[in-house]
Amino acid sequence: MKLYEYLENVKSKNPLVQNITNYVSSNDCANILLACGASPVMTNEIDDSIDIASISDGLVLNIGTLNKLIIKSMIYTGKTANKLNHPIVLDPVGVGISKLRTDSVKFLINNLKISVIRGNISEIKFLENKSEHPKGVDSNNLENLYDISESFKKLSKKLNSIIVATGEIDIITDGNKTCFCKNGNTYMKKVSGTGCQLSSVISAFVSSNSDIFFATISAVCSYGICGEIAFSRMNVLDGNSSYRNYIIDAMCNLNSEIFEKKVNYEIR
Amino acid sequence: MKLYEYLENVKSKNPLVQNITNYVSSNDCANILLACGASPVMTNEIDDSIDIASISDGLVLNIGTLNKLIIKSMIYTGKTANKLNHPIVLDPVGVGISKLRTDSVKFLINNLKISVIRGNISEIKFLENKSEHPKGVDSNNLENLYDISESFKKLSKKLNSIIVATGEIDIITDGNKTCFCKNGNTYMKKVSGTGCQLSSVISAFVSSNSDIFFATISAVCSYGICGEIAFSRMNVLDGNSSYRNYIIDAMCNLNSEIFEKKVNYEIR
Amino acid sequence: MKLYEYLENVKSKNPLVQNITNYVSSNDCANILLACGASPVMTNEIDDSIDIASISDGLVLNIGTLNKLIIKSMIYTGKTANKLNHPIVLDPVGVGISKLRTDSVKFLINNLKISVIRGNISEIKFLENKSEHPKGVDSNNLENLYDISESFKKLSKKLNSIIVATGEIDIITDGNKTCFCKNGNTYMKKVSGTGCQLSSVISAFVSSNSDIFFATISAVCSYGICGEIAFSRMNVLDGNSSYRNYIIDAMCNLNSEIFEKKVNYEIR
Repeated sequence: MKLYEYLENVKSKNPLVQNITNYVSSNDCANILLACGASPVMTNEIDDSIDIASISDGLVLNIGTLNKLIIKSMIYTGKTANKLNHPIVLDPVGVGISKLRTDSVKFLINNLKISVIRGNISEIKFLENKSEHPKGVDSNNLENLYDISESFKKLSKKLNSIIVATGEIDIITDGNKTCFCKNGNTYMKKVSGTGCQLSSVISAFVSSNSDIFFATISAVCSYGICGEIAFSRMNVLDGNSSYRNYIIDAMCNLNSEIFEKKVNYEIR
Repeated sequence: MKLYEYLENVKSKNPLVQNITNYVSSNDCANILLACGASPVMTNEIDDSIDIASISDGLVLNIGTLNKLIIKSMIYTGKTANKLNHPIVLDPVGVGISKLRTDSVKFLINNLKISVIRGNISEIKFLENKSEHPKGVDSNNLENLYDISESFKKLSKKLNSIIVATGEIDIITDGNKTCFCKNGNTYMKKVSGTGCQLSSVISAFVSSNSDIFFATISAVCSYGICGEIAFSRMNVLDGNSSYRNYIIDAMCNLNSEIFEKKVNYEIR
Repeated sequence: MKLYEYLENVKSKNPLVQNITNYVSSNDCANILLACGASPVMTNEIDDSIDIASISDGLVLNIGTLNKLIIKSMIYTGKTANKLNHPIVLDPVGVGISKLRTDSVKFLINNLKISVIRGNISEIKFLENKSEHPKGVDSNNLENLYDISESFKKLSKKLNSIIVATGEIDIITDGNKTCFCKNGNTYMKKVSGTGCQLSSVISAFVSSNSDIFFATISAVCSYGICGEIAFSRMNVLDGNSSYRNYIIDAMCNLNSEIFEKKVNYEIR
């Protein structure tokens, strides 16, 4: 199966992706989901969330503006999703910058079967207990990628989740194989919520395909390609706000031909 | 009174429109309200909401990301609005996809005088108890419109509210007459929150005019015209995110001349 | 020190700005912070907020969609920021339009050391008990500026906070000197959340500079310049939504050269 076929499956299946997420990037997450061919629904309240989990195809848990009721809602909704074998994507936004975030992420990981965990490199390192204190929610460094990826492989095995660590080069591992995705543009860091958007996009892809490792790779490459196309549209007066629009626009127009021409990854 | 005059009244009256709404589309709702000549205020907390209801001209109740406290706030704020004869617009986002949404909508309808209920066709059908399960919050089908509209007419009479059911052709009925609005573009479904935006726009129009049936028709046509103008601006790289901006931009620039040229509706 | 150097310090220091804010403009606040060189983090829940205050460089308290838990979180987080001498910027959105808003603002002012209070002219007047009832959250009038500024000077002394009152001409006073900033464009009033954005930008500037009065002036001029640059980009089909993007874009591209050419203020 070609990598672009995972994208085509999103468009043909039109999965309903439920997001228990933050209020900062929720509009962008909704629009990028529509752009890639999915239908979004955002919920918070526990009763509402549990009911909707049963008609959704996938669930995103994003702790960007968490509170205690939301975490409770995540657990109960997640258990419903688990029962129905709907994949869960966890975005541990800012794990390590507060005790509540760290405890909540541990609680979610220990009590739910999570299909994919997506964070930036410092967030994923924190999950390994290799914590330099991450700065805010957008820190990142280029480092010795192969070393890092070996330890992420172990983390993936331990947690039984696909790990996605985004940075200049994105690392995706299922504990056996590791994919390095070179698509994307560093300017994406200037846009709030690109990580959140990617987590929602991954959910759309893993909800529409049975091979969730390759679906995740396809999602990460797709979003990276959008970042490249968006950057090539920038004129001299454009900044991060126009860029934000262009990324979502690019997802709207992404097709197999563009994907094949631009995709840039390596699997080890 | 010409249909475009309802729009002119919004611009001259500059109504203060209070929204108890979801966090996904709230920014777009605020900007479309400013675009059409109204002033927006968003509130949640019950004490805050009740006080502000007394200085507002209209109230929008949108259950997109409802919780129990918000529903309580909607009831008490709605009662204040009712006492002051300020029109209420209800947007029953996703009614039928969870018990909480269904119960909340029934509770609001049974306890408040609602001037206008706006949903997509499957949401309005659910209110009639003709529920196919609506998929998420953006489902829609073209069907036998005249048949549907006859049953919506009955629903309107029963609930004593104007009913707006949006789809490829929008149906607006006050229980006696029915308007079919043909303005709009199917691409609007690719943008998150266009329904929410329309509900806020309707509130601006019914808050600024005494004939609320024709004010609602004018609002629906205005927003549809914006969808058309926005679509005509799209270039080959644009997608749903630029389209979102263009819709709001178009409302900013909408005037009587453009309205008259583009408006396309039929009343039976 | 030149006024543009305060901007350069934001870019070189890259402060982490914590926002306890509303859900309507939070995405725009995050993106304008990234645009000017800061890193944003948005928090609500009290435990989360207190922890993050200790690693942040500045704190914004914005009551746009306040509730009682958020106010509690603001107090405790603010006390942490005060202990660490991190500057606090307060945006009293809509103070005077509800008892809860008025009481909350008084409570915050009485219990915290606030470095900067930014509101529109009617909001600041309300803090002086010279309340005409402000209409919604975006009212404003041009009036006798020097008279107004004298009374704001007294307010600044009384509250021991820098006061920023935005309008056609912005007034910034530390109780001794007053700056009148003439940058900006009246079209900014058509965009929801420009006041909120400015409050976040001020936080980035006062978190990165020791002279917080001139840092505030530099922030206000910077944002006003962005409003001018954005307006000059508008084409005939653009409206408030494209303008919103252009303002943030302009901040992304703002540098010392542009700043020096455009800045327009007077200190008395």
